[in-house]
Amino acid sequence: MRIDIITVVPDILKSPFEASILKRSIEKNIVEVHVHNLRDYTDLSYNQVDDYQFGGGAGMVLMIEPIDKCITALKKERDYDEVIYMTPDGVTLNQKIANSLSLLNNIIILCGHYKGVDQRVRDLFITKEISIGDYVLSGGELGAAVLCDTIIRLIPGVLSNETSALTDTFQDNLLAPPVYTRPADYKGTKVPEVLLSGNFPKIEEWREDEAYKRTERLRPDLLE
Amino acid sequence: MRIDIITVVPDILKSPFEASILKRSIEKNIVEVHVHNLRDYTDLSYNQVDDYQFGGGAGMVLMIEPIDKCITALKKERDYDEVIYMTPDGVTLNQKIANSLSLLNNIIILCGHYKGVDQRVRDLFITKEISIGDYVLSGGELGAAVLCDTIIRLIPGVLSNETSALTDTFQDNLLAPPVYTRPADYKGTKVPEVLLSGNFPKIEEWREDEAYKRTERLRPDLLE
Repeated sequence: MRIDIITVVPDILKSPFEASILKRSIEKNIVEVHVHNLRDYTDLSYNQVDDYQFGGGAGMVLMIEPIDKCITALKKERDYDEVIYMTPDGVTLNQKIANSLSLLNNIIILCGHYKGVDQRVRDLFITKEISIGDYVLSGGELGAAVLCDTIIRLIPGVLSNETSALTDTFQDNLLAPPVYTRPADYKGTKVPEVLLSGNFPKIEEWREDEAYKRTERLRPDLLE
Repeated sequence: MRIDIITVVPDILKSPFEASILKRSIEKNIVEVHVHNLRDYTDLSYNQVDDYQFGGGAGMVLMIEPIDKCITALKKERDYDEVIYMTPDGVTLNQKIANSLSLLNNIIILCGHYKGVDQRVRDLFITKEISIGDYVLSGGELGAAVLCDTIIRLIPGVLSNETSALTDTFQDNLLAPPVYTRPADYKGTKVPEVLLSGNFPKIEEWREDEAYKRTERLRPDLLE
């Protein structure tokens, strides 16, 4: 999979791809992530890429021309399955969307910043608008990093133990059951005895039961 | 406001706080963000902080002892309003939660990684569990960065133009209206005429109308 991210703040995206699972998936050549600085695609002085809103109002808007140039240059090199815009009014990301995006070959992710992009960018170039949740961020960069993380960890070969992703919360519409590790007794607080029993069918039953109870208590909407 | 983040992968969190609004809010001394490496709080060899799950199963679990030590050390220095754990089965973050957290003085954010933390950590030390959305990430680090971004940008003095945050999506349960900037005609695609009219009451009316229509089309749930 190849992911091209377009942003005015490429610096934000440095460390998320230089650590942990994202770093390893890039090193293993399972994924290529390329970050493009929108300022490299403008002819205006001071590398200007934003301007005031038509009609007045607070907040700058990213201009269509540099975005057009960047996307057009990328599309000349290869076909893209999706051109995604990160925006709080997009479709809310969930595990199902992440699963389906993880099957694609090439995607572009455009990050908004300030008040967002000129609406014509969305009308002309964007094929999918995604929000990571009902809250406002300074820009689309952290959203893009989140989206990449959710997608990339699902690609076969990225996680060392593939069953680990399958037992995660949301993959079966249940929250994950509680987990415990050593010591069995920490200052008097103990691990549930069943987990120390070695009786694996019973442990499995306990976990399913706990997952169901936790989901019912915290997220009954997932059971509907 | 002071935010202490506890993580096993501090490197992920470097660049998000070294760019854009988060960087400026730290430079202006409006916010202090301290990232703590959990490995500095273990006495085990190889700085071990995780171990296998009791009862078997894929994925490692963060141990209680180093987390206890780190949180206890922080609490000795000052009082904390909340000790937040980033987890997909927490309460889903929204703008209302971000608004209320932005009023606090000191918070700790604990990032899970691998299969999460020993359940006893959650039972004993955590006062609030937050999820940034219904999807699974490699760890809580990007979630913590997202949470910090949503909170910090709401603190007075962080955004240069405070009205900018007030007109964002979600603050009034409406999506933001479309925005446009120069040029008024881009390769034949034009900006809506009303925005060029200079008739500000009419522009305001158009924006409210568009915000409502967009919300009705994309997120009818927000209007309920």
